[in-house]
Amino acid sequence: MKQVILQRPLESHKGNFGRILTIGGNEHYGGAIIMSSSAAVHAGAGLVSCATDSKNLTALHSIIPEAMFINYNNDIDLLKAINASDVLVIGPGLGDDAVALKILRKVILNTNTNQFIIVDGSAITLVAHEAELIQALAVRKTIYTPHQMEWQRLSGIKIADQDDTKNTVKQQKLGATIVLKKHNTTIYHTDGSISQLSVGGPYMSTGGMGDTLTGIIAAFLGQFHFKNYEQVVDCAVYAHSALAQELASSKYVVLPTDIINALQKFMHKYSLQSR
Amino acid sequence: MKQVILQRPLESHKGNFGRILTIGGNEHYGGAIIMSSSAAVHAGAGLVSCATDSKNLTALHSIIPEAMFINYNNDIDLLKAINASDVLVIGPGLGDDAVALKILRKVILNTNTNQFIIVDGSAITLVAHEAELIQALAVRKTIYTPHQMEWQRLSGIKIADQDDTKNTVKQQKLGATIVLKKHNTTIYHTDGSISQLSVGGPYMSTGGMGDTLTGIIAAFLGQFHFKNYEQVVDCAVYAHSALAQELASSKYVVLPTDIINALQKFMHKYSLQSR
Amino acid sequence: MKQVILQRPLESHKGNFGRILTIGGNEHYGGAIIMSSSAAVHAGAGLVSCATDSKNLTALHSIIPEAMFINYNNDIDLLKAINASDVLVIGPGLGDDAVALKILRKVILNTNTNQFIIVDGSAITLVAHEAELIQALAVRKTIYTPHQMEWQRLSGIKIADQDDTKNTVKQQKLGATIVLKKHNTTIYHTDGSISQLSVGGPYMSTGGMGDTLTGIIAAFLGQFHFKNYEQVVDCAVYAHSALAQELASSKYVVLPTDIINALQKFMHKYSLQSR
Amino acid sequence: MKQVILQRPLESHKGNFGRILTIGGNEHYGGAIIMSSSAAVHAGAGLVSCATDSKNLTALHSIIPEAMFINYNNDIDLLKAINASDVLVIGPGLGDDAVALKILRKVILNTNTNQFIIVDGSAITLVAHEAELIQALAVRKTIYTPHQMEWQRLSGIKIADQDDTKNTVKQQKLGATIVLKKHNTTIYHTDGSISQLSVGGPYMSTGGMGDTLTGIIAAFLGQFHFKNYEQVVDCAVYAHSALAQELASSKYVVLPTDIINALQKFMHKYSLQSR
Repeated sequence: MKQVILQRPLESHKGNFGRILTIGGNEHYGGAIIMSSSAAVHAGAGLVSCATDSKNLTALHSIIPEAMFINYNNDIDLLKAINASDVLVIGPGLGDDAVALKILRKVILNTNTNQFIIVDGSAITLVAHEAELIQALAVRKTIYTPHQMEWQRLSGIKIADQDDTKNTVKQQKLGATIVLKKHNTTIYHTDGSISQLSVGGPYMSTGGMGDTLTGIIAAFLGQFHFKNYEQVVDCAVYAHSALAQELASSKYVVLPTDIINALQKFMHKYSLQSR
Repeated sequence: MKQVILQRPLESHKGNFGRILTIGGNEHYGGAIIMSSSAAVHAGAGLVSCATDSKNLTALHSIIPEAMFINYNNDIDLLKAINASDVLVIGPGLGDDAVALKILRKVILNTNTNQFIIVDGSAITLVAHEAELIQALAVRKTIYTPHQMEWQRLSGIKIADQDDTKNTVKQQKLGATIVLKKHNTTIYHTDGSISQLSVGGPYMSTGGMGDTLTGIIAAFLGQFHFKNYEQVVDCAVYAHSALAQELASSKYVVLPTDIINALQKFMHKYSLQSR
Repeated sequence: MKQVILQRPLESHKGNFGRILTIGGNEHYGGAIIMSSSAAVHAGAGLVSCATDSKNLTALHSIIPEAMFINYNNDIDLLKAINASDVLVIGPGLGDDAVALKILRKVILNTNTNQFIIVDGSAITLVAHEAELIQALAVRKTIYTPHQMEWQRLSGIKIADQDDTKNTVKQQKLGATIVLKKHNTTIYHTDGSISQLSVGGPYMSTGGMGDTLTGIIAAFLGQFHFKNYEQVVDCAVYAHSALAQELASSKYVVLPTDIINALQKFMHKYSLQSR
Repeated sequence: MKQVILQRPLESHKGNFGRILTIGGNEHYGGAIIMSSSAAVHAGAGLVSCATDSKNLTALHSIIPEAMFINYNNDIDLLKAINASDVLVIGPGLGDDAVALKILRKVILNTNTNQFIIVDGSAITLVAHEAELIQALAVRKTIYTPHQMEWQRLSGIKIADQDDTKNTVKQQKLGATIVLKKHNTTIYHTDGSISQLSVGGPYMSTGGMGDTLTGIIAAFLGQFHFKNYEQVVDCAVYAHSALAQELASSKYVVLPTDIINALQKFMHKYSLQSR
């Protein structure tokens, strides 16, 4: 954490801290992409745009006026936003219908190998059936963030059979970082190394927790520029759970919005120790 | 409280803590179902969906992005949500017109005996005239949460005549738990036993207080799995009023949103004492 | 204050604390009626409904889910709400066009002498030209809350000429309480007596401050039942400014929403001293 | 600061503290103009109206009910609002399309030399191509608030070549105050003098920071009436960054909404020292 959450250079502007594009939030799950966007803003992203259903415009601005809105059904606007982004999050609240798939394809096929792309939630389920997308993601800087059932769908490995050996074999084929969310979340890196999380707990088992994680990963990748970017992913995953653990010392369940609101102070603490 | 608000098992996921569906909120009373949903989230429910009028989508997401939205006029979506739920709340802000009755019928007739169903507010008034619904609820795990006038409508017992003997006779015919909200709220259990609340007070006499209670009951039933589930209902009712009493030590009137915001810390306190 | 802000009787329900109807908020000034409604809720009103433009539904619920919504262009709903209310506020953000006048007429001509009616903002300006409305208000429990220019319009007395003698003559003809808002706000009672406010200050000179006052007056009238109800009005006006003065010890300008959020604790302090 | 943030005169009303009109916020960037408006309210403006896309009405009221709404596509309403204003902000979230240009022209060509006009964001980029607008602004009390790239577009001076000498030559031709936002923000005054900011830092490099500044400048100009109004601009720019610096002692990144929420206490501190 101390090596990653650096004090910011004096000469800098918001472009240095990442242009994030979050994509998701259909009619049912608008809150998911809003929480992802809000987490990205609070975690220090320079600029955050949220591509979502037009029904979510007002709630987005009401919760996080710092974020910008894009109608994800507007092809031209969406394409422009994809091209202007350093880090993309796709999946929170996206759903799994034909509209979701269309948007998912457009996003993945229009990104390039310089951009980070975080694939979450129903986007993982959709990708599982689309060889073309899996191949495209294999040559990008891709981070999948499945829970165990989503990993089963993507990897074909049943939950009961999931272990580091089998997971690594499949992950290597996918050519991507896998953040496998569970009790003691495990991260499989592209070089074959594995990290395991020792913080966090069941107070995090509540809707929207994973959406929030995507925003933190995106913000960290957008602002902390290391060649070994997977170290930054590890750090974001750690921050999310370590902060939840802190908050759980006084709260029975820790909500995504609690984590979001506490990010700035949490990161400050670590930045003081950085060099 | 200590026996019910247990520390969560380490190996768990949000599905373990209940899938809640709140149904209500017409054009006039959107706030009611939003407060019920928000209370459920803050009280630790794993996943909360809110089926309501489409006009309430944005306010729902603005207040509690952790909750999901369903248009309660969309038959297919509503049915799917009913089937996916462990606990249902119907009534807060539902109104008493033809649309309300249609939704109420659909909900009650499509639930099964494994699901909990909390019937509140105008849903109680509507049910009072529908023998078919009363019969369906009698064979389900039903909790009615009437105030005295609603209980008069449902039971036929005038407020002045309501006493434990008469109430129990009627309650046994209804085959449901009755949370009769009043000064010293009384809970009539299906086995004929009675609990009486000794906490709470007139600082709770404000609009939305009952809506909030439904969300807490739902969250407690969703996450605390006891054979004797009515003990959990008792506990939720106690938590709602005991927390209000705590807050009243510094506030003249205690608002529903005050209770909602304080739930996580209140529950934490008790969980420390659980074993 | 100690005589008015009483501890609540144990046996009570929300109906005892007043059914408030706030009416106002056109396309431009939705915030005004929302602040009035929110102030009423926080000041302890039992039930608060807000009749406003349909564009304001979502912002109302987002800010104060405890309040209910009525479309003020729906004649049937508005009339039903008027009849069900103990205290009405008309004016905050109402505007002064033909729609505003139509609603104003409907409200005033459909209230009765048992109801309190607080006439504020543009409603005062509109009333000034309508002899029929002035006469109707003269036989009701009416409280006008003009600032000096609005009082000039209603009374015909130019600001420079306004003094207690002239103001009282006109006020007696109007047969209503006048809360004349200015540096040292003055209240003219129906019995000819006069109160002058010695708290408050220029940190209150900001948009929405008067809207907030209407909600506090309404809540106080709704819950504190004294034969001499103008004592309750005095108390509400005092509470509004005294609380602002407290908050100004740490804030350069005191916003309406600051006052709203601090009302519950402020009232609690006085209720402890009541007997 | 002590000379500018004066204690308010006892005899005053909201009109004394400025009528502010903020103009901007298209479909994509509603949050920008909302933050500008909210900053103006919290910084003590007497009355704040926000002219924006109708899609932003609800988010505006939800975030800052103290502000009033104007549909910026309604020519009559916009013109009326322009005429009624003491200080105008144009640009935050305005965009750079034909609609934006039309509104920009209407605003600039309908203001007069008594009004302050703050030109920000895309409005600067648009103005750069419009000689007629540049000329109109040259005879008004205009404050441009460009970052370095926007200044390049307006001045024709490439970022690498921007220095005080070249900037001053161009600024004198523009006949306006230039707040050039960068590490050590520099302010070029109409009399040729230059101020340089020594507070603030990279924790401010986040979307919406500049929008917030426009609201603070507007509120300061609206309420602090000095012949040398550029001293007030300096002070507003200082307050924005000095407050951010204070907040950065506990937060890794300082968000615009953090600054907005802390303005009232920050200004209070200085007003105590004023005479």
